[in-house]
Amino acid sequence: MRAPIDTARLWARLMRLAEIGALPGGGVDRQALTAGEAEAWHLVLSWGAEGGLLASVDPVGNLFLTLPGRDRTLLPVLAGSHLDTQPTGGKFDGAFGTLAALEAVLAMAATGLVPARDVVVVAWMNEEGSRFAPSIMGSATFAGERTLAGTRAVVDAAGTTFGEALDALLAGFPDLRHRALGFAADAYLEAHIEQGPMLERHGVPVGVVTGIQGKTTWEIVLTGAEGHAGTLPMAERRDALAAFAAMAHAMYAEVGGTDPLVKFTIGRLEIVPNAPSVVPSRVAFRVDLRHPDTVMLGSLGLRVEALARGHAGPCDVRISRMSHAASNAFDPALRGMIQAAADARGHATLPILSAAGHDARYLAPLCPAAMIFIPCRDGVSHAEQEWAEPEHVAAGAQVLADVLWTLATPS
Amino acid sequence: MRAPIDTARLWARLMRLAEIGALPGGGVDRQALTAGEAEAWHLVLSWGAEGGLLASVDPVGNLFLTLPGRDRTLLPVLAGSHLDTQPTGGKFDGAFGTLAALEAVLAMAATGLVPARDVVVVAWMNEEGSRFAPSIMGSATFAGERTLAGTRAVVDAAGTTFGEALDALLAGFPDLRHRALGFAADAYLEAHIEQGPMLERHGVPVGVVTGIQGKTTWEIVLTGAEGHAGTLPMAERRDALAAFAAMAHAMYAEVGGTDPLVKFTIGRLEIVPNAPSVVPSRVAFRVDLRHPDTVMLGSLGLRVEALARGHAGPCDVRISRMSHAASNAFDPALRGMIQAAADARGHATLPILSAAGHDARYLAPLCPAAMIFIPCRDGVSHAEQEWAEPEHVAAGAQVLADVLWTLATPS
Repeated sequence: MRAPIDTARLWARLMRLAEIGALPGGGVDRQALTAGEAEAWHLVLSWGAEGGLLASVDPVGNLFLTLPGRDRTLLPVLAGSHLDTQPTGGKFDGAFGTLAALEAVLAMAATGLVPARDVVVVAWMNEEGSRFAPSIMGSATFAGERTLAGTRAVVDAAGTTFGEALDALLAGFPDLRHRALGFAADAYLEAHIEQGPMLERHGVPVGVVTGIQGKTTWEIVLTGAEGHAGTLPMAERRDALAAFAAMAHAMYAEVGGTDPLVKFTIGRLEIVPNAPSVVPSRVAFRVDLRHPDTVMLGSLGLRVEALARGHAGPCDVRISRMSHAASNAFDPALRGMIQAAADARGHATLPILSAAGHDARYLAPLCPAAMIFIPCRDGVSHAEQEWAEPEHVAAGAQVLADVLWTLATPS
Repeated sequence: MRAPIDTARLWARLMRLAEIGALPGGGVDRQALTAGEAEAWHLVLSWGAEGGLLASVDPVGNLFLTLPGRDRTLLPVLAGSHLDTQPTGGKFDGAFGTLAALEAVLAMAATGLVPARDVVVVAWMNEEGSRFAPSIMGSATFAGERTLAGTRAVVDAAGTTFGEALDALLAGFPDLRHRALGFAADAYLEAHIEQGPMLERHGVPVGVVTGIQGKTTWEIVLTGAEGHAGTLPMAERRDALAAFAAMAHAMYAEVGGTDPLVKFTIGRLEIVPNAPSVVPSRVAFRVDLRHPDTVMLGSLGLRVEALARGHAGPCDVRISRMSHAASNAFDPALRGMIQAAADARGHATLPILSAAGHDARYLAPLCPAAMIFIPCRDGVSHAEQEWAEPEHVAAGAQVLADVLWTLATPS
């Protein structure tokens, strides 16, 4: 049996949620641990309460809404995404996955049938990492990839700690049940807009996500010496920008040109003193390397570091690895269930790699995990014009509901 | 006959002038057309008046102090430098050349002998180009390289025009005689600290400047397209920073490595949007190219532009030449006179190329011109710790005085 979701209610709720933090250009600014997120919690909790779901929160601010199953000692099935947005984010990133899971569970509850195990909707805390960096903090802390103390100590631009901001948020929800950090789950599912153009290009409403490509980032700092552009002989210079040019040129060719799957980006660069007639003494830049194959990601990462050391010329170089997330492949059985559910509903599918990170990255090591993508217009996300068509929202949410039903009530 | 200068008075006046705009670290902030410059004018005019010099100003704010000669129809001899400083400048850049010329003329006047021709001390307006850019405005306008209207229209960061600021300055000097812009001269001499390490390294107090190296500057703007670091395939990218790396790498090698005399600098660079996970859509940078040989400067400039066009890859490139000043060689006869004067005073000398620009650059096409350099500690200038030894100040000023005497009163 499959519970039909109320696609009109889901769309209406997506639009209602988007009113919280609405921007003039159609986008949303609802960053984690702001008043907007508190308002979103109240709204989502009220929708959960209507359906009889049990609300709880863990010590890092992940919010859970549980439909209790017949045997509460069985591992629960978990599904969701996040409620926070970028400062100029859109209506769908995070919100779609959270409300689709909520709709699926409410549809399940509305059948009057009690699932075999608990089914839990989750809104992970601070996926975007805008007010408090880095991103994907809540699920990483849930999964033990970050310590709770370390996450609470993170400071925003105004000097407020994550811990202080979270305590202030929770003070507004005195009736919310508190649960321990981290628990075992039977499976995790997350629906999301693609944030890329592939599904739209192929005219396919449902993407069966194969995995999330791995990512390593570095900060590389070149230190030379300042000098007068008119007087200092070239042979005596320790020009940090000249060293950068040689190093970056080699990296674009030898790392960026390796194979069609690699993504190599230098997106941020700072130069000191940045004056037209002064030889630059310092260049600091960020490298963002991604590859779906973890072994390739590792060996290309070694190449990045070797090129940084080898092309510093007369400058000193400091190479700091800022982050590393291995590539992960989602659970084949879950992917098969998504495929089968889409087939049964008559939706075309495409296997697709997630280039961006998601909370599912941190759930995948804990339990079978998978993701469902739907198209977004022009592949645009993290922007006010982010848009998904109602029929794609409905298709993705129904497939999610169908898979959750199967997981929650095995035949 | 040679008039001995009062080296103690010169040093005392340099230190007194440095009190105007004095900074805590020992430096000076006395930018052009500020209250500090007005105060400096009052001080220098009072010193000139004590010696009977006639003060005048031209329409662009160049200040003149004239010791009248026997035949006032003869072309005058001109010597000086500038009174303005960088925002964190030193006590000697500009001030030394101006006060050395003043001391030389006052010493000449004190002999009671009347020179054959007028001898004129000049303080050129706005050599540093800090409040109003670019630099070396007053002498360039005097020489007809800039129009008066164009110079008056230049705007500072607060929106005030050069013309408004100059009129305000001049309103404080109602008795100052106004003279026409530009006049023919018999010769121009300028004394200056070296702003480089060569004289100090060789233990030589007097540099006979051979010329000023030419300089061409460009702004080059690369325009590509923004993209997501995780999703946009390398082959589809129009990465402005990747194009910059290829272009700059080629320029450093093929222009910067041409010969030991070339100076090639990229000192300023801006990147848009400058976010770690976004493919850069725009890179704007400044190229500063210098060479003592004008023909080489020209051919290397063509190479810069060809490399910019040839390495833009999938990006658009816009190449704007911001400035061009040809190299100039100073007058051989004047250089010989400086050499002879230094020899007669027992000062070792070194022929030396000026890597930095000076007002003398714009006088050289108008009349025989030359410069005298003295050492400065560690070659440092445009900095609070800029320093010249009293004996070097005395040596340079006496050589200047001796050459001026010879020019003003030919035997």
